[in-house]
Amino acid sequence: MNPRAMVKLSHFLNSRNKLFQCRFLGEDAGNCFRLMSSAGISTAGQSYGADGRSSGHIYADYSIFKGKAALSACPVLPTFSKTGSGYTKVDRRGTIMLTFRPAIGERKYDSEKKQLFALSVTEIGSFISLGPGDSCEFFHDPSMQSRDAGQVRKSLSVKPHTDGYFISLSVTNNILKTNNRVTVPVTTAEFAVMRAAFSFALPHIMGWAHSTNPPTDNVGRDFVKVHPQLAAASEWDR
Amino acid sequence: MNPRAMVKLSHFLNSRNKLFQCRFLGEDAGNCFRLMSSAGISTAGQSYGADGRSSGHIYADYSIFKGKAALSACPVLPTFSKTGSGYTKVDRRGTIMLTFRPAIGERKYDSEKKQLFALSVTEIGSFISLGPGDSCEFFHDPSMQSRDAGQVRKSLSVKPHTDGYFISLSVTNNILKTNNRVTVPVTTAEFAVMRAAFSFALPHIMGWAHSTNPPTDNVGRDFVKVHPQLAAASEWDR
Amino acid sequence: MNPRAMVKLSHFLNSRNKLFQCRFLGEDAGNCFRLMSSAGISTAGQSYGADGRSSGHIYADYSIFKGKAALSACPVLPTFSKTGSGYTKVDRRGTIMLTFRPAIGERKYDSEKKQLFALSVTEIGSFISLGPGDSCEFFHDPSMQSRDAGQVRKSLSVKPHTDGYFISLSVTNNILKTNNRVTVPVTTAEFAVMRAAFSFALPHIMGWAHSTNPPTDNVGRDFVKVHPQLAAASEWDR
Amino acid sequence: MNPRAMVKLSHFLNSRNKLFQCRFLGEDAGNCFRLMSSAGISTAGQSYGADGRSSGHIYADYSIFKGKAALSACPVLPTFSKTGSGYTKVDRRGTIMLTFRPAIGERKYDSEKKQLFALSVTEIGSFISLGPGDSCEFFHDPSMQSRDAGQVRKSLSVKPHTDGYFISLSVTNNILKTNNRVTVPVTTAEFAVMRAAFSFALPHIMGWAHSTNPPTDNVGRDFVKVHPQLAAASEWDR
Repeated sequence: MNPRAMVKLSHFLNSRNKLFQCRFLGEDAGNCFRLMSSAGISTAGQSYGADGRSSGHIYADYSIFKGKAALSACPVLPTFSKTGSGYTKVDRRGTIMLTFRPAIGERKYDSEKKQLFALSVTEIGSFISLGPGDSCEFFHDPSMQSRDAGQVRKSLSVKPHTDGYFISLSVTNNILKTNNRVTVPVTTAEFAVMRAAFSFALPHIMGWAHSTNPPTDNVGRDFVKVHPQLAAASEWDR
Repeated sequence: MNPRAMVKLSHFLNSRNKLFQCRFLGEDAGNCFRLMSSAGISTAGQSYGADGRSSGHIYADYSIFKGKAALSACPVLPTFSKTGSGYTKVDRRGTIMLTFRPAIGERKYDSEKKQLFALSVTEIGSFISLGPGDSCEFFHDPSMQSRDAGQVRKSLSVKPHTDGYFISLSVTNNILKTNNRVTVPVTTAEFAVMRAAFSFALPHIMGWAHSTNPPTDNVGRDFVKVHPQLAAASEWDR
Repeated sequence: MNPRAMVKLSHFLNSRNKLFQCRFLGEDAGNCFRLMSSAGISTAGQSYGADGRSSGHIYADYSIFKGKAALSACPVLPTFSKTGSGYTKVDRRGTIMLTFRPAIGERKYDSEKKQLFALSVTEIGSFISLGPGDSCEFFHDPSMQSRDAGQVRKSLSVKPHTDGYFISLSVTNNILKTNNRVTVPVTTAEFAVMRAAFSFALPHIMGWAHSTNPPTDNVGRDFVKVHPQLAAASEWDR
Repeated sequence: MNPRAMVKLSHFLNSRNKLFQCRFLGEDAGNCFRLMSSAGISTAGQSYGADGRSSGHIYADYSIFKGKAALSACPVLPTFSKTGSGYTKVDRRGTIMLTFRPAIGERKYDSEKKQLFALSVTEIGSFISLGPGDSCEFFHDPSMQSRDAGQVRKSLSVKPHTDGYFISLSVTNNILKTNNRVTVPVTTAEFAVMRAAFSFALPHIMGWAHSTNPPTDNVGRDFVKVHPQLAAASEWDR
């Protein structure tokens, strides 16, 4: 008997440190990375494609595997743009992307039928400030303000149970006549991980982690040594 | 119908991930960046102007758009100076700059009439430690200890309501005979975002994030490998 | 009398800032580093061995020395692998490795008889969300799903006492006919340190600290300046 | 009247963003930096002296100026040493250094009579976990286990009052026949800043911020892309 194999099985069943032993059928990578990269285009090394994408990005999620479905969460970073004035600003804030995959066998989950819900910054604020017994619900409508408004509706609800929360995603599509609901029970410990991870990710998603960090290259290190008359007093200065 | 356009509308209305769809009339960039850069001077690339300003800085805020006004918050980093003894110290601590802009139409906010309030480190301490039902108020007087003391007074108050807080800024200018008050209702979720973001920013604003991080360049990496006899025991050593 | 020596003794007894004055007999380094490096192979400088190991890694733990045993905790980082598609993903999540060493004399602890327990991400979630009076217990079985299933069982329990928690590790080995139990009383202050340190380490252990941080080299700094059309809106885009 | 001067006065009195306007008589720099550098030796640029000291370090504290005394806090980083086996480990944990200076005039504080108290990692754990109404007290004896044991005793106490805490340092020196006590009232807001800043600093002081961060130079970036068979499963592997 191979003791290392034992270990892996144990971790798989106990704590699932080894990722992706629960198989996501239908795709290789999680959804987060797909958001970060162009499907089907492989770039090598640290180089950047003409479209500015980096292959150096690291993909990490947090996945909870339950009997009827799996729930994965991962941070999606903000995007930035350079203005004509020569500075960089947040163009679109990031999200926490939640992915639900229904079970189609023992520890197999169907990525073809996955449903997504991107928690906005303020929705993350709701999520991480949930007290014991609290619940919350968020609604997204991809067709809002179009002629199809109300035809497709997604709602994510977080409701307490005795040890943790039920996280449910409902997707109603009146055009395709489909109505889909998936619920994942999340233990108190798993929710604590999500809360800690989402709280950590929040300033990154908002772009504040980028704006508060001084540049780390050599030029940047000199930056803090000069006297840039950046007036914190400018509150008075208009 | 362009599905991508739908998405943007939806995000705009639901979660406002896409920034600046609510228009700030009267200026292009937020106030934070103006504090970081010289107005009207555009520097290219990563180079530094003679004044030590960097165009590499990234600008990010958190904005809440309500019916009567918008409230934006962004961190303003500390400034540093190099002493004659050859080390770098914080010259002026940073702040969280709050900017209030009155509404002048549907989702349009008037930057010409904006009012600023720079939360100090200790005021941020008050803000992030507010419990449910707590309130706080801060007073700034730009003319303090001058002959005009008391002529212009700003007060920022944070008061609880059923779901969150009212954040109000009053500016009384006895010289110009103006009296200005703007209030933005902030939900519990939005306040949770502010609390998390302000808590994250606090050590950066204080300069502690700079002083606790080891240098990241090559020289710096060697630093931690030598035995600098930096005596933590120096408490006894005077 | 050498005043510096005095200081060290004082710190040793009072606050144990100086590490390893309590001696771990039987090995020089803590267990964490051994996990990070290959035993008996010394690589010089910042170079990497053919196996990709770095000698540049820094080892730090948090150790609590009590009468009957010592408890050390240290973060074990995740491992990553590069996929055929050219991106990097978490291969195995990290852990917090707990090491128990029985006392074999005054302030001497026996590393030969040490017992290990690797807290998974979700177990860390349980640990850091323990309220006053709460307890938790985790079970690991290295032989699970093998013919030896149930022959070796480890259980870690955290139980409240008047000032803090008792942390106990039981290891039952039916094959070797051994039954081992070690308990370390942890004060409220020590538990607060563990909670803060484990919370800090959690996003690093999950790989989120890696995935949310933008690249810091020059190539990376350009990354945020381009317009990578990374659609946060992709929730709608399937 | 110079409006910028007004601003500085206002900030000085209101929020003290501008540091060192309250004068520390008797020394130029705070105590933290002195711990980091050799007195009287000025090194230029980013170079390192033969003793391994860096002039690139940034100094930042948090100071509270009250009627009878000023209290300053600053993080002191751990020291590291390289072992014969080629890895780097924490040699001495860092501290939060508290410095008390008695007032000797309006907003003037006497650095010649300053008293120091270095909070250890576990004492910081006590400090940041203080609930409303809680108190704590720490004792340091620089002469412990010498023939002068008990001759000099320092005690730091943190006791609640209606809005915050009293932080007191008592130093009893039986040899010099001196007995010194200084108390600084700290508001709830100021304590919230200390709690947040100390919590932030804790993993840096422990060395965990160093050990969990991947190397940031080019060599380091490659590190996470290889498959270092660093066995998180090594719990089972002894």
